[in-house]
Parts: sequence; structure tokens; C-alpha cells
Amino acid sequence: MSLGPWLIAPIAAVISIFAALYFYHYVNKQSSGTPKMIEISDAIREGSRAFLKREYTILAIFLVIVGSLIGVFLPSPMWINANPIQNLSLALAYFFGAFCSALAGYFGLDVATRANAKAAYAARSGLNKAFPIGFRGGAVMGLAVVGLSLLGISIVYAITGMPEGMEVPPVLAFSFGASALALFAKAGGGIFTKTADISADLVGKVELGIPEDDPRNPAVIADNVGDNVGDVAGMGADLADSYIASTVAVLILGVALGFVEIALVFAGLGIIASVLGAMTLRIGAKGNPGKALNMGTYVTCIIFLLLTFIVSYYMNYDLKIWGAALTGLAAGIIIGTTSDYFTSENKKPVMKTAESSKTGAATTIITGFSYGLESVFPPLVGIGIAAAIAYYLYGVFGIGVASLGMLSIVGLIISNDAYGPIVDNSRGIAEQAGLGEDVIRITDELDAAGNTAKAITKGFAIGAAGLTVISLLGTFQEIAAKAGQAVVFDIMNPLVLLGALIGVAMPAVFSALLMLGVGRNAERMISEIRRQFREIPGLKEGKEGVKPEYAKCVDIATTGALRELLPASVITLVTTLVVGFIGGIGALGGYLAGSILSGLLLALLMSNAGGLWDNSKKLIETGVHGGKGSEAHKAAVVGDTVGDPFKDTAGPSINTMITVMSLVASLFAVLIVKYNLLNLLGY
Amino acid sequence: MSLGPWLIAPIAAVISIFAALYFYHYVNKQSSGTPKMIEISDAIREGSRAFLKREYTILAIFLVIVGSLIGVFLPSPMWINANPIQNLSLALAYFFGAFCSALAGYFGLDVATRANAKAAYAARSGLNKAFPIGFRGGAVMGLAVVGLSLLGISIVYAITGMPEGMEVPPVLAFSFGASALALFAKAGGGIFTKTADISADLVGKVELGIPEDDPRNPAVIADNVGDNVGDVAGMGADLADSYIASTVAVLILGVALGFVEIALVFAGLGIIASVLGAMTLRIGAKGNPGKALNMGTYVTCIIFLLLTFIVSYYMNYDLKIWGAALTGLAAGIIIGTTSDYFTSENKKPVMKTAESSKTGAATTIITGFSYGLESVFPPLVGIGIAAAIAYYLYGVFGIGVASLGMLSIVGLIISNDAYGPIVDNSRGIAEQAGLGEDVIRITDELDAAGNTAKAITKGFAIGAAGLTVISLLGTFQEIAAKAGQAVVFDIMNPLVLLGALIGVAMPAVFSALLMLGVGRNAERMISEIRRQFREIPGLKEGKEGVKPEYAKCVDIATTGALRELLPASVITLVTTLVVGFIGGIGALGGYLAGSILSGLLLALLMSNAGGLWDNSKKLIETGVHGGKGSEAHKAAVVGDTVGDPFKDTAGPSINTMITVMSLVASLFAVLIVKYNLLNLLGY
Repeated sequence: MSLGPWLIAPIAAVISIFAALYFYHYVNKQSSGTPKMIEISDAIREGSRAFLKREYTILAIFLVIVGSLIGVFLPSPMWINANPIQNLSLALAYFFGAFCSALAGYFGLDVATRANAKAAYAARSGLNKAFPIGFRGGAVMGLAVVGLSLLGISIVYAITGMPEGMEVPPVLAFSFGASALALFAKAGGGIFTKTADISADLVGKVELGIPEDDPRNPAVIADNVGDNVGDVAGMGADLADSYIASTVAVLILGVALGFVEIALVFAGLGIIASVLGAMTLRIGAKGNPGKALNMGTYVTCIIFLLLTFIVSYYMNYDLKIWGAALTGLAAGIIIGTTSDYFTSENKKPVMKTAESSKTGAATTIITGFSYGLESVFPPLVGIGIAAAIAYYLYGVFGIGVASLGMLSIVGLIISNDAYGPIVDNSRGIAEQAGLGEDVIRITDELDAAGNTAKAITKGFAIGAAGLTVISLLGTFQEIAAKAGQAVVFDIMNPLVLLGALIGVAMPAVFSALLMLGVGRNAERMISEIRRQFREIPGLKEGKEGVKPEYAKCVDIATTGALRELLPASVITLVTTLVVGFIGGIGALGGYLAGSILSGLLLALLMSNAGGLWDNSKKLIETGVHGGKGSEAHKAAVVGDTVGDPFKDTAGPSINTMITVMSLVASLFAVLIVKYNLLNLLGY
Repeated sequence: MSLGPWLIAPIAAVISIFAALYFYHYVNKQSSGTPKMIEISDAIREGSRAFLKREYTILAIFLVIVGSLIGVFLPSPMWINANPIQNLSLALAYFFGAFCSALAGYFGLDVATRANAKAAYAARSGLNKAFPIGFRGGAVMGLAVVGLSLLGISIVYAITGMPEGMEVPPVLAFSFGASALALFAKAGGGIFTKTADISADLVGKVELGIPEDDPRNPAVIADNVGDNVGDVAGMGADLADSYIASTVAVLILGVALGFVEIALVFAGLGIIASVLGAMTLRIGAKGNPGKALNMGTYVTCIIFLLLTFIVSYYMNYDLKIWGAALTGLAAGIIIGTTSDYFTSENKKPVMKTAESSKTGAATTIITGFSYGLESVFPPLVGIGIAAAIAYYLYGVFGIGVASLGMLSIVGLIISNDAYGPIVDNSRGIAEQAGLGEDVIRITDELDAAGNTAKAITKGFAIGAAGLTVISLLGTFQEIAAKAGQAVVFDIMNPLVLLGALIGVAMPAVFSALLMLGVGRNAERMISEIRRQFREIPGLKEGKEGVKPEYAKCVDIATTGALRELLPASVITLVTTLVVGFIGGIGALGGYLAGSILSGLLLALLMSNAGGLWDNSKKLIETGVHGGKGSEAHKAAVVGDTVGDPFKDTAGPSINTMITVMSLVASLFAVLIVKYNLLNLLGY
């Protein structure tokens, strides 16, 4: 491994980690406020840590099993392979990938659960004092994730390179490790957060009519913990997963073209752009935090495009490659902007859905669901056009670069996204600690800004996942071809078709398992909340000194989430291997294509419908159609509750699921080419 | 055109038409009951006719426009074509297809709206008197549809044959004509029926607490009309559409193999089996109507398999072809049985959904929707395996024969399906005419039997539509190859991929347009119902002699349905042509494949979730979880209302939509090969 321009990747990664440490230090030195606030914040942090610890424990068992399988069988069974050090290196890369991702999650969660109280306390002095704490708290997660991810890839690459003689590159195993973690983090966190959210709302808001975040509600701490484990740790792992996968896909696809290092160079420059964007993000005394976050995104995009253009020019890279990256970035912004239309309070879909709430919950659901269905059109077409242009510029490699372009600024995107749950928590702490209406209003403003930024970043996340899995499909085809089986994924080939039909069903089944898990889990928690209100004297009336047993609710959410996520994860893995080892490469290719198509459809539908119902409810709460407490509001609350697992559990987990399936397929492609049932039977 | 075994098709078709006439006569000679019943039945028939008349008027305009386009441009532009009689014959075949289908719809609707009162009146003398009237009323529709369809195909085939020199066979235009009608009938009828149903329920049952079918409700006649125009005419046209399309696909695919006539022979034998099945269907004095209907289906299947086996043997057809037909039939039954699991009252999905209603409407929706997502797995895999086996037996032609096998018994399936709305109407008439509890109980039993039969027939409908569109995709490829462009639908080709992503979005957008149409239309009708209750003195109290203005509600549903269905139909057509004429054959192939995959997913999801919510509500009405009027029941009603447009408007219309898109693509393939933008630009 020679010294070369790829070193920009590890250097940028280290810079990013140092920037994260700087923000960590910045956040930590802020005051955490009153003893009451510290108490609440500590409870949230303890709950989050307890969840993470138990999640990581189960994950470790899962990792050891899958890692052993990899070590024994890949790239070829140990007892056949002349060079079993290859098996060892794949297994180690796999563990390392999971480790890097887990570390980033832990680190990010820790600071997020500190920043919440600090931002709430600073809100007493005004918006412009609180905002940087929220943002920089989120940026710790964002910069740590991309830094550790890219550092990990760089280390694996530095040690193993892209060995020509080895059919399965270790960076692929690294990516799979990170994805396995992401699947657990996203699905488990998603089940946790919605269990707590739905249960707290149903008993608190609907049955008893007490406000959101009311300290009497036994599920209120679990709800706050959920924001962190679901939206901070889960979402960070999800984006990191796409980021690593697209970098690795471009690495692998680049080998054949002699462009190995471009992936690392572009990823490194993306990190530098993200660090600069995060560092320079400011809000004036009367600034608008939503605008500041969006401005940060645009600034980062421009820095990235300038840096990559300059480097491409001086390194004599074909500018078409840069064009592909530009295509990806542009598509991300366009997709984000159009998705925004379907979830904005002042646009037709949300307004019509709110209006339909006047005739009850059923029409709220039908109308919102219908707009959710419509909302899939612009992003799907956008992803298709971006892929076609990128392909025209540079083939499948171009599609990979486009996804890399979109994801290059992911450091900032995760920062923006993690900002949301932090300030959402701040609001909760302000309410529970009784900081007064003025402070709550400021935290509400901070919260609203998070939602504005989310619209654009969500466009990036979905678009990037789409392009990433398409390029992973190309990687899979390339690896299979190298292993001796060139297959065209022709939809009229009966095995490809059968695979595609199974693949189409997979994201649906996966979503169903997660949502049913939320339902079962919420039932358990609702009983517990009702029990506490019934059995703890003075709780309902809010008697001084009477406190609910918060920890019990956290415990129920934790145990349940971990129990429910395993079947979905295992089915994802096992079905992929079964389709491959029975039907061969063609069936597996169809399966991946089918799951990509239906996965994007369902992810967009559920995310957007969920966001739309959420904002319809908020719109009614501003006073239209009767405002809070009206029949329309009750109907809108039903919509919002249905939307919760749509947008925060099932929808976003599908991205991770598809990535995991694609990576498993690529990893095992070599083995599947040699050993698959139909082949062995002579078909 | 020589005399040959294909003549079995027109002969069987004529037999079927005569059998339909016999049943028509049988039903007509039964008593229509009291003057009150005749009055109601007449009102329903008048409403249905008025709707059909206006629907056909708009359709005629649409047909003339599209027919003119076909006449001018196909198979090649009139001014280029040396033989412009070809253009004329395509246009005429198109009109003829629409005419045959429209005639069957009119005929079936007429008898269905007579049989309802007659069956209700006969119910006074017991179940076994009422059942044959309901079934034979439905069989008029079933046998007339298949008879007229196959007679039409035979006539077109007899006149034009499968002209080798002509790139677009006229039978394809015939099929497109029938499909265009089906799209209008299914979508228009679906919007009508759910507008009336939801509005009647929301104001009647939910707001005022009066029972279903209460004559005080101004929407009650519109609701009954809806059953007929949506479920009799719409559903019949939908199945006829698949039936014609699969017969035509097998005809076209058979040409290359020298098997032109097998399609007509098998279709003819299928009709004979259906006629025999319908004629011999009996119910004993203490018989179970649900079992009788299912038994009729099985008997028909066995007769069909026997007849085709014998004929194949004596005609020296390759028995593999027969095997493909068997595969299709078997798959249909398996798909039906597994789908049944998800919508049966005594199985886990419905029971769990009913239980989740205890925690409110939101959990009802989440649970039911999740099971709906799970329910797509068995049928998709079933369709995939059936297609793979059929392909293994005889290539794409085998897939076509499998769909033909599944649809061969469609005469009986439509009969069973049309039976449902007839006896549903009987119940309504019994209630409105005050025939007493005993009669209502018998009509309830008749109604329940319809639901049991529906589970299996629905499996056929969806499975058959899936296999049909897959074989149409093969037809499309074949026609394009003949026209000089052999294309592999490789998902990694950027144009195919772009097409697939657009195609995936289409069924979603289409469903959304229909459901939003239902919503808008229901809003108008709800206002009208409320106005009548407010302004007509004594109506709410049920004062003797006070009647609501039924016709106004029928009129609102009619006008609204026709206004709302046009955009969805036009977008379906236009987008298909735009994708083809811009992106070429590859993009169009991907587009069709994408829409098939997502269309099957959404159709299954919405149909099954809708059925599941319906039965959860019914389960609660039997007394569990608090029974009628409980909080759980209110939540279940919300689920049922959401499910209504899912299962009766959007879900089943998707089948027709995909068929229409596939036929348009095949018809215009020749033109698209020659003139498409990317090609003209040199890509």
C-alpha cells in the first residue's frame, strides 16, 4: 500500500474526530441547570445507556454467530482455502465495522443526553444561547460517526488493500458489520421510541387529558429515552451504514476501472466540507435556527463541490466523475424539496388532511395515506433520473459516485438530524422541571427548526439509500461475474422474476414485524401506565412529592424492543441466504432488485404519510378546524399515532434492511456461485 | 381461416350465452314481492341504469378519441401504411371489444337489480328457496361476460386471423377495448360504491346511531346502487378484462410456436366447464350456501382439467401445455386459501386486530395494516413459483397458459362474485321493506356465504391478473422483437431502471387519485345527507310517510364518480405513452415490470387489509370485546371505513390498471420502436 492521495481519507477522519471532541468539550462545559433538571437528564441518560448496553449484549451474540459463519465459510470454506488468513481477515473486518459503528453510537448518545438539559437551561437566556448547544450536541454524533466510519474503512484498506487475488474484499465485510449494527440500532431503537411515544400519548393525552411531557406520566422518561435511542443512535447508525456502503461500493467498482482511490478521496473531502460547515454554522441574535441549519447544509454542499472540483482538476481525474457526484448532490436537494411539499403545514396535502379530520379518523387516515402514496412519485423519478445521468456519465461506477456525492456531506446531515431529538428532549425537560412558558416557547421554536431541517435531510437519506443499493446491486453483479457467473438480471427470466416477487414482499413483511412488535410492546406498557395511575395514590392529582416509577416503563420498552427486533433481523438474513443458495445468482439478483423497488416505495410512503399526519395534527393545534380538544383534533391524533410507527419505526428501518440484504448477497456471492441447489440439480 | 378445433370457442360461447338467458328467464319469473319491495328494487335499478348510462356516455367520448388515435397511427401511421384497411380493422376491433364488455355489464346489472328483491321475497320461504335466485342472478352476469368475451374474440379471430404480415394483431385491440371499459367500470363503480357506503355509514351509523340499510337514511338507495355498479358491473368487467387479455396473450405467444388455436380451445373448454358447474350447483334443504359455492368452484376446476386433458390427448397437444394450465389452477386455489387466512374471523390476524381495537382506532389501523403487509407474502411467492414452473414447462407461453388455466373457470368465479352484492341488496331490501327479523337473518346467512366464496375467488382474480400481466410483458417483448428491437429487460440498464422506478410509483399514484376522489365525493354527499336530516321534518324520527330524497344522493355519487375517475384513467394512458415515446422499448419494459411488482404488492395489501378490517368489525359485532356500541366497536368501525376504499375502490382497480398499461404498451410497441426520442437523439 503506497502513500497516495487516499491518505486524505484517514487524515480528514481524524480531523473530524477531533472536531467532535471539541464540540463534546464545548457542550460539557455548559451548565446543566437546576438539580431537578440534572435529575431528569440523568434519568434519561441512564435509561439510554441501559438500553444500549442490553442491545449491544444481544448484538454481540448475533455478531459472534454471523462472524463465525463468515470466518468459516468466506471467501471459501476454511478447509478448502489455501490461505485461511483471508477468512480471518474477513471476520475481523466484520467485527471491526460493527465496533466502529457501535462506538460512534455510544459517544453520540452520551453527549445527546447531556446536551438536552444544557440547551433547556440556556434557553432561559434566549434562543441564540440554546441553539449552539443543541446543534453542537448533534454534531458530536454526526462528526464522530463519519470520522470513525471513514477511519475504519481507511485502516482496513491500508492493511488489506483491494487484493486482486481475493474474491471478497475485507472492506465489504467491514461494511456488513456496520450494517448489522445499524439494523439492530434502527429497528430496536425504532420499536423502543414508538412503544413509549404511543403508550404515553394514549394513556396520558387521550385517556387522561394531561399534556405531553407531563411529569406525572410514568412513560415520560421512557419517551425521552426513546427520542435518543431511536432518533440519535438509530438514525445515526442508519446514515453511517449507507455512507460506508456507498464508499465501499465505489471502492470495489473502481478497482476494475483503475480508480480505487477516488472513493476515499471524495469521502475525505466530504468530511472536510462537513467539518467546515459545522464549525461555521452560526445564528445571529435574532436568527432563525431552521434557516441556519439549512444554510449549513448548502454551505457544506458548495464547499464539497469546490474541493472535489479542485482536487479532480489537479489530480487529472475525469471530470465526468465529478459530474456524477454533482448529480447525486443535486438530486438529494431536489428530492428533499419535493418531499417537503407533502409534509409542510402550509401546503395542500397537510391542509387537506387536517380538513378531512372534521369528518373523523377514518377520512384522516384515507386522505393522509393517499397523499403518502402520491408522495412517492417525485423522489422515485428523481432517483431514477439521477441514476440514469450518473450511469450515462460513468456506468454503474457513476451511480456509486452519485450516491457518494449525496452522502459526502452526511456528517452535517447527521448533525442536523441529531439536533432534533436533543431539543425535543429539552422541551420535555423544560416542561417537567417547570421552567415556565417562556422557556418552553423557545424550546418549541428550537424543535420546529429541527423539523424544517429534517425535510431536506430526509430527502438525502432516502435518495442516498436508493442510489447506494443500486450501486451495491452492481457490486454484487461484478463480484458474481468475477467468480465466474456473469448474469443479466432479466425480469423475464423465471428465476429472476421469482426472486423479484419474493424480494418485493420482504420489506412489507419486515415492516409488519416491526409494527406488530410496537403494538405488542405498547400493549404491555399501556397496562403498566394504567396500573401506576390506579395504584399510586396521588399520582393522577399531581400531589407534591408523588412520583411515578419511570424505570419500570423504560424497562418494559427495552425488553420488548429487543425481543421484537430479533425475528425481523434474522428473517432478513436467512431469507436472503435461502434465496441465494437455492435459486442462485439470478434469483438473488431479482430478489435484491425487487426489494429495492418495493423498499423505496414503502419507505417513502410510510415516512411521508407519517410526517404528514404529524403536521396535520400540529396544524389543527394552531387553532384551525376547532383546535385542540375538538373532534377534528381527536381524529388528527389518531392519524398522528398511526403515523408514528410508520415514520419512526418501519419506514426508515427499510433503508437499513435493504442495505444489509445487498451486502449479505455480495459477501456470499462467491460461495453461491459455487454451491446453489438449482445448479447442483443441474438446472 | 379454416374450420378447426378453435370453433369450440364460439360454440361454447354461444352455449354460455344461452345458459345466461335461461337463468335470466328463471330469475325473471320469480315474484318480486310486495309493492314496497318492487318500489325499492326499481329505485335501485333506475339508479344503476342512470349511472351506467352516464358512465357509458363519457366512456364513448373517451373511446372515440382513443379509437381515432389507434385508427390513425396503428399499426403504422395511415399515410405511410400501404394497407390502411389494417388501421381501420384495429380501430373497429377496439370498439367491438368495448361494446362486448359494455353489453355484458348492462345485461348483468339489469338482472342483478331484479334478483335482489326476488331473493329477499323468496327468503320468506327459507334459505334453499332464496339461494338459487341469488346465485343464478349472479350467473347471468358470469356466463354472459365470458360468453360475449369469447364470442367477440372468436369473431375477430375468424375475420382477421393472426395475420403474419401485420405487426399488431386486431385481437390485441379488441382486448384493449374491453380493458378501457373495465378501467372505467371498475374505477368509476368503485368510487361510486364507496362514496355511498362511507357517507351512509358516517352520518347514519356513527352520527345518528341508526342501523345499516335504515330507510330513513337518504343514502341507502345510493348505497345499494353502489353494490351493483361497483361489485357486479365493475368486478365483472375487471375479471373479463384479465380473461380476454390472457386469451389474447396466449394466442399471440402461440403464433411463434405454431399453437395458435390452443388458446381458443382451452378457453372454450373452460366455458363449458363453467356452464356445467353453474347448472349443477345445488343446495339441499339444510344445505350450507357457502359450501355450495365453493363446491361449484371445485367441480368446475375438475371438469375443466378432465376436458382439457382428454382433448389434449386426442389432439396430440404436448401434455406439458396441459401441465401449465394445471399449475395455474392449482396456484389459484393455493393463493385463495392462504389469502383466506388473513381475512377469516377465526384466524389470528382478524382476532388480533379486533383485540387491538380495545386500545383505540390507531392501534386497529396499525395492526390491520401490518397484517395486510404480511399477507402479500404467500400470494407473491405463489405467483412466482407458478410462473417459474409454467416457464420451465413451456417458456413465456407456459406462463400465459397458466393464467389461462386459472381464468378458464372465470365464468363461475364471476357468478360467485356477483352473487355477493345481489344478496347484500336483498338484505337491504328486507330491512327497508320491513320483512321482519327472520327474513333478515336468512339474508344475512346468504350474505355471509358470499364472503366465504369471495376469499377463494379473490385468490383467483389476483393470481390470474399477476400471471396475465407477466405473459403480456412477454407479448410486449415479442412484438417489439418482431418489429426489430430485441430488448432484454435488464434491471441494471439505466433506462430499464428509470422505467421501473416510474412504474413502481404509478399504481401508488393511481390508487391515491381514486381514494382522494372517494374522499372528495363523500364530503359532498355527507353534506347532502346532513342537510336532508336537518331540513326534512320528521325524517330523523321516522314519521309515517316521510321519505328522504334518495335520488339526490344517487345523483351526487354518479356525478362525482365520473368526475373523479377521468384523471386517473388519462394519467395511466398518457404516462405509459410518454415513457415509451421518450425512453423507448427498454424504459417501457422496465416501467411495466415495475408497475406489475408494485401493483401486485399494493393490490394485495389493500384488498386483504380491507377485508381484515371488515371482518374484525363483524367479529366484534358478534359480542366479543364489548360488542356493538362499545369503544372497541367504534375503533373497529374506523378500521372498516378505512378499509372500504382500500378493498373496493383502489385495490381491485390496480389489476385493471396494470392490464391496460400492458395492452397499451403492446399495441404501440411497433410505433415506439420506430419513433422514440432517445433513439431519435441518437442514444
